[in-house]
Amino acid sequence: MSTNPIVKGKLVCVALNDQQQLQDLNATFNEAPYKSAPTQPVLYFKPHNTWNTDGASIEWQEETLVVGASLTVVFGEECCRTSAEDALKYVAGYTLMHDFSLPEKSYYRPDIKGKCLDGSAPIGAAVASASDVADPQTLTVVTQVNGETVGEQSVSDLHRGVAELISTISYIMTLQPGDAIAVGFPGNRHPVKQGDKVTSSIAGVTELTNVVEA
Amino acid sequence: MSTNPIVKGKLVCVALNDQQQLQDLNATFNEAPYKSAPTQPVLYFKPHNTWNTDGASIEWQEETLVVGASLTVVFGEECCRTSAEDALKYVAGYTLMHDFSLPEKSYYRPDIKGKCLDGSAPIGAAVASASDVADPQTLTVVTQVNGETVGEQSVSDLHRGVAELISTISYIMTLQPGDAIAVGFPGNRHPVKQGDKVTSSIAGVTELTNVVEA
Repeated sequence: MSTNPIVKGKLVCVALNDQQQLQDLNATFNEAPYKSAPTQPVLYFKPHNTWNTDGASIEWQEETLVVGASLTVVFGEECCRTSAEDALKYVAGYTLMHDFSLPEKSYYRPDIKGKCLDGSAPIGAAVASASDVADPQTLTVVTQVNGETVGEQSVSDLHRGVAELISTISYIMTLQPGDAIAVGFPGNRHPVKQGDKVTSSIAGVTELTNVVEA
Repeated sequence: MSTNPIVKGKLVCVALNDQQQLQDLNATFNEAPYKSAPTQPVLYFKPHNTWNTDGASIEWQEETLVVGASLTVVFGEECCRTSAEDALKYVAGYTLMHDFSLPEKSYYRPDIKGKCLDGSAPIGAAVASASDVADPQTLTVVTQVNGETVGEQSVSDLHRGVAELISTISYIMTLQPGDAIAVGFPGNRHPVKQGDKVTSSIAGVTELTNVVEA
């Protein structure tokens, strides 16, 4: 089984945090059963069996895999019901995560099957200390597949920013040292096939590379 | 923060596994967007911050809390893509879990907020060794609130049985030693108020008691 030295407790991912994606889904949101867009962050977990590392190969599933990358906040101190103003004080550092998953057929269904594939959440390579990142909102995540840029997500373009998310999530569940939050992915997850090399980077923070098993 | 010595990796809970509840929801299932009942087990996670112990008091949330109890399978060996026939070989033992949560407004929405309350998943008290439980399907979970029986769930009345669930879930994600699955709750979660004492028991396995904080 894969494992990862950075994340120790829980890995919380924020779905539907790309402003463009939210606009594109607006008509769907207004259908039954909700008839409105989500008013709170939509979260999912990547459990322990998914954690993986930089350089690890990703198991092929004999069906389409898609990938997205996210800035990932790693906690250094216990964080419970904090304000957005204080939220960044609990952050030990920043890193990257690749989320390999099965494509979602519906945005409604909690997609445990598609999100919990063994080894599908590489995290790393390095963690940039929070003291070296003046403002996480200024960061941009760039993803390349086989050298071609397929995704570019500025954190400032996310619907909810890093400090706001930490605050909101800290009212739902206590965040503990070694917990991590992946704050947002590009709305269009990119399809990958066997042998594809996926590299994401955040300038001044870190780079993460994985290859889909041939 | 609460913690628990029994569960080490992930705690997977099976929702909508009460046959009566499935029948009662049949009309809802047939509405948009799905227009059919779920064909696969509906799963949710209780993350690390929720884990708690026998005897622990449960934080009051200033709104309704509901509780359900489930037989909980604790893994002793790594279990990946097993058949139902072989599934019980990976089980170290059986215990109980209380799931304290906010009532669900909709069965659609992945209810992270209502399910991830700090300390809301007491597990225990003891783990009965798998070698002492001839057939988990013969067990019954009885729950009392302040001495009055409010729930009685025979494992044999669950829509999917223990071995079938382990097999199906082991194809979705590898189960590791110290992981646990709560196999099913009564469809009607019971409302509790401040000071209520909740005791569940499985004859010959264990008993679990928690009090909602006054």
